Amino acid sequence: MIMAQHRILVTNDDGIDSRGIFALVQAMRRLGEVVVVAPDRQQSAVGHALTVSSPLRAVPFYRDGSMFGYAINGTPADCVKLGVSCLLDQPPTMVVSGINHGSNASVNAIYSGTVSAATEGTLMGIPSMAVSLNTFDHDADMTLAAEVAYMVASRMHDMQLPKGTLLNVNVPTVGQPDFKGIRVTRQGHSEWRDSYERRKDPMGREYFWLTGDFVTVEPHPDADDLAVQDGWAAVTPIHYELTNFEAFHRLQSFAF
Amino acid sequence: MIMAQHRILVTNDDGIDSRGIFALVQAMRRLGEVVVVAPDRQQSAVGHALTVSSPLRAVPFYRDGSMFGYAINGTPADCVKLGVSCLLDQPPTMVVSGINHGSNASVNAIYSGTVSAATEGTLMGIPSMAVSLNTFDHDADMTLAAEVAYMVASRMHDMQLPKGTLLNVNVPTVGQPDFKGIRVTRQGHSEWRDSYERRKDPMGREYFWLTGDFVTVEPHPDADDLAVQDGWAAVTPIHYELTNFEAFHRLQSFAF
Repeated sequence: MIMAQHRILVTNDDGIDSRGIFALVQAMRRLGEVVVVAPDRQQSAVGHALTVSSPLRAVPFYRDGSMFGYAINGTPADCVKLGVSCLLDQPPTMVVSGINHGSNASVNAIYSGTVSAATEGTLMGIPSMAVSLNTFDHDADMTLAAEVAYMVASRMHDMQLPKGTLLNVNVPTVGQPDFKGIRVTRQGHSEWRDSYERRKDPMGREYFWLTGDFVTVEPHPDADDLAVQDGWAAVTPIHYELTNFEAFHRLQSFAF
Repeated sequence: MIMAQHRILVTNDDGIDSRGIFALVQAMRRLGEVVVVAPDRQQSAVGHALTVSSPLRAVPFYRDGSMFGYAINGTPADCVKLGVSCLLDQPPTMVVSGINHGSNASVNAIYSGTVSAATEGTLMGIPSMAVSLNTFDHDADMTLAAEVAYMVASRMHDMQLPKGTLLNVNVPTVGQPDFKGIRVTRQGHSEWRDSYERRKDPMGREYFWLTGDFVTVEPHPDADDLAVQDGWAAVTPIHYELTNFEAFHRLQSFAF
């Protein structure tokens, strides 16, 4: 079922001029009216940051001669808050964030600005999803990811997600013949084994670049990252009920 | 039980020169060796951001004539990653973040740089906690919060937290006579009702300042924010297993 008239707020963390958001906007226009409110520059690994110490501005951004959306000097979460509170005439029926260059499966969801935008939408009571493509290649083909975004968004109402739960969608970089379909998954248990590359600047002072390897810790058969590796588009319902209830109940009688 | 020799990495999001981190360091020194690795400037509402597009530097920071710690041009999560990976000779036995000026109970945990530092420690397999004081007053008395931090840290080993679970500790601003003690709590269900104040700059261009009201949505009797309002120090075990398993199981048969 497609709702009579969707109003979709589209954002991302790669910036309003990225190829990913352009592909996503075209896909979402098949569902209804689209308003773009996105960062004016790249905001990767920005997490769920909010701009509280400086004012925000919303500048019209044009693409191919027509108004494409509002460029914001802030984070993805700022874009959703400001968009819903001030820029849209009425609340959106959906917040869709992406298409991100790079996976947000498994532990990456925690660091992701793309996911944080969808989280902010959810916190505001709006059905929300994040869409990411499993490659850092900026020339990557967005066709499959855009089609998956359309298919999942068009069914989001039917999924009857509980309040506070959003969809984290990750799409493989495979050609249509090798694409296995869309699957509901759980957050994978992988992690970054970090390291820093130490260098010296021309003045001889040390500095550090973050690098790291992504390793699977527990290979759950329904893990989102493993499903994507296997050629599936992975749809993980996530929420921000952070309490570990097992520990909470066990520690009720703990005496400090 | 106090471990024979703790090595505690202390960080925060208010910056290495804040009063909160100084009080926390003094409390943690009662437990063992302390190494401070903290942002060189205020990083509030920075969420779980990581610095990936620019190099990090670690500059010795002196206080009262002696080396206090390393100041990092990055986020709280950067400080923990860089500290553990490069600056400490051996891994810390504990990561403690704070004392934050301002509550990180309820939904605030999602936006909090203070909590994100403890999350990063947990992701690296290190027992971790965040400590926040329920006031934005920068002259607030830190004595009770420092004492609570010491009491909880000294018992963290006995709490046998599962892997991936950290403690989010929030302390009320009450005098010792009105302090009710330390309680294990769950994340409260409150939210920010956002608004933006619209202003015009001297050139007549519009800009927006984030404001908002914090409102309780579901008043659970064990909610951390309500416990703090009631005079308790609230200790919430939180984790980053974000999957909503109820939705995951229900949607297993969903056909896209």
